[in-house]
Amino acid sequence: MTDHAFTLLATDGAARRGRIDTPRGDIQTPAFMPVGTAGTVKAMYPEQVRETGADILLGNTYHLMLRPGAERVASLGGLHTFMDWQRPILTDSGGFQVMSLAKLRKLTEKGVTFRSHIDGSAYELTPERSMEIQTLLDSDIIMQLDECIALPAERPEMERAMELSLRWADRSKTAFGNQPHRALFGIVQGGDDAVLRARSAAGLKSIGFDGYAVGGLAVGEPQDVMFRVLSEITPELPNERPRYLMGVGKPDDILGAIERGIDMFDCVHPTRAGRHGHAYTRFGVINLKNARHRDDGRPLAAESPNPNCRRFSRAYLSHLVRQEEILGAMVLSQINLAYYQELVSGARAAIEAGRLADFAAETRAQWEKGDLPAVA
Amino acid sequence: MTDHAFTLLATDGAARRGRIDTPRGDIQTPAFMPVGTAGTVKAMYPEQVRETGADILLGNTYHLMLRPGAERVASLGGLHTFMDWQRPILTDSGGFQVMSLAKLRKLTEKGVTFRSHIDGSAYELTPERSMEIQTLLDSDIIMQLDECIALPAERPEMERAMELSLRWADRSKTAFGNQPHRALFGIVQGGDDAVLRARSAAGLKSIGFDGYAVGGLAVGEPQDVMFRVLSEITPELPNERPRYLMGVGKPDDILGAIERGIDMFDCVHPTRAGRHGHAYTRFGVINLKNARHRDDGRPLAAESPNPNCRRFSRAYLSHLVRQEEILGAMVLSQINLAYYQELVSGARAAIEAGRLADFAAETRAQWEKGDLPAVA
Repeated sequence: MTDHAFTLLATDGAARRGRIDTPRGDIQTPAFMPVGTAGTVKAMYPEQVRETGADILLGNTYHLMLRPGAERVASLGGLHTFMDWQRPILTDSGGFQVMSLAKLRKLTEKGVTFRSHIDGSAYELTPERSMEIQTLLDSDIIMQLDECIALPAERPEMERAMELSLRWADRSKTAFGNQPHRALFGIVQGGDDAVLRARSAAGLKSIGFDGYAVGGLAVGEPQDVMFRVLSEITPELPNERPRYLMGVGKPDDILGAIERGIDMFDCVHPTRAGRHGHAYTRFGVINLKNARHRDDGRPLAAESPNPNCRRFSRAYLSHLVRQEEILGAMVLSQINLAYYQELVSGARAAIEAGRLADFAAETRAQWEKGDLPAVA
Repeated sequence: MTDHAFTLLATDGAARRGRIDTPRGDIQTPAFMPVGTAGTVKAMYPEQVRETGADILLGNTYHLMLRPGAERVASLGGLHTFMDWQRPILTDSGGFQVMSLAKLRKLTEKGVTFRSHIDGSAYELTPERSMEIQTLLDSDIIMQLDECIALPAERPEMERAMELSLRWADRSKTAFGNQPHRALFGIVQGGDDAVLRARSAAGLKSIGFDGYAVGGLAVGEPQDVMFRVLSEITPELPNERPRYLMGVGKPDDILGAIERGIDMFDCVHPTRAGRHGHAYTRFGVINLKNARHRDDGRPLAAESPNPNCRRFSRAYLSHLVRQEEILGAMVLSQINLAYYQELVSGARAAIEAGRLADFAAETRAQWEKGDLPAVA
């Protein structure tokens, strides 16, 4: 058995409020995991990430296996020491980014061979090697290797990838072995097909995992398709295990997925949007490149619990963004991650209080209302 | 009289230990002023700049007059509020960067007209407009407009620019008027010619300024020429006023200038070097792109008072620099500014103790010795 116990603290409809206990600290769910792609959440110190409210980070196996290399990270004491983040880290399997970033990919039953997008050097990623890399990184939550395809896709292709992912799930579990201080999550595939998804979930359950991820969503399909798949699949997953929707998403996606019973999320969007001058606040998304902010001495969001939303004027943030100043990326990354954490912590409190529907309606109404009127 | 009193606390040879009292806080001298070019010390939050030990920042009039514009900064409450730095700010006159960055410059007795290097729009900078802009920015220490020429130069050219700078000094003083909560500094010019420099200093003294800057150095001449000019000029400056060497320099330049009686410094070098992967520590300058650091789990400088020098391994910093991660620029900017502050605070303590020569010798010996031996 794993040391990663999941405790379901409350439910509200399909939504769940829980806690994952890990040897490196608790994870309150629903949880949003900032993405530390290459051993750093871009433009932020680790303690600044923690201050936004994050309990856990995600690291990308693909990026880290290329640079600085998994064996190097291991010899330097593991990823937590390397980046000075002592709380839990979840690593992905590397598969998704091999498919989206690497060159000259060749997929076989055994695994995938590819060339680095950085220098063209050759690599092989198999379920066994993915487990080895994630263990070398000293990850707390390890993901099986899977094959994620884009949507829309034909049913035979969705079925083929799902079945391959199931066989890789089995090999991942065997290769993972007995590591009670780490957790291993399986990944449900099957595209937008309810029958394939259910078959995938059943197969994973019979192998047995510490948590169940939903992969292959937010890969080109409309939001209502994603929500439909989530509504169909979460009842197929064990209640006593955390559920993780991979790579999702915008605040509205996250809120809808929480309502459908998802516990964990990760996405590069908040930090990437911040580097491009977009701020997420309770008013929705604000483009600081817009001319209306240039002379606006008001803070971004006066009532925000985040000091960075209060201390700098919109005019200053707009100036930083226009000048492509690094501080603009730093502040907006922090503002956006803090808003994502405000959203999931608000959802946690609402589920506990049995008022998630009200919380969601209020939150969406505020997004809909949008930003403050411009100054005259 | 100005509210910016300068108190000479101790001397050691030509070197001086002092304090400038300003309405926004004291400045301990010798002082190093980080450069906040366009309203931000690049890649750092204001409190991080303060944590390195900085008492005062420098803002660039040229950059700020183009973007976001001096009138806009004034309408937003001034530069301190704009960038959330409540301690003193010194602004340069804009002249130096007009000469180095702007296009289609035309210099006349009246001032200089030029076009923005960003969008080509036309501006005029005169002594009067420079005073107006620096006042709009709400600067604490304002610099006269001067003409700074590159070295080597012919004597008639050095003389012409020096004489023009003196006439502009007079007009700057008149335009500055009576603003007791701000200080106005004159700028000594005259190239590498001792007679011209002395004539410049005498002219400025007869006008009367709150402080005296030495301009037109570190503009192409060897270090020994700069040191010779400093040794010649500081005896010509009033003892009871601070002396500021503009735009200098590397740690070795600063130490030598302190020994020759300079009180204040500014330079973009520490933050720019940080963004390019160079770290300044007591071991001298360390290039983190060097392959020797890739597997080096040791901190940059284990005995540094700066936590960023201790918490991250050389291997991690090397990784960040190679990956061009923003965090690399953030950490190294902080490390470098902290080292510059360690250097001037060490010099301050040494002057108080009458042992500057020993401090300088020890510091130079450590630089000479260089970095730790590479790991085997």
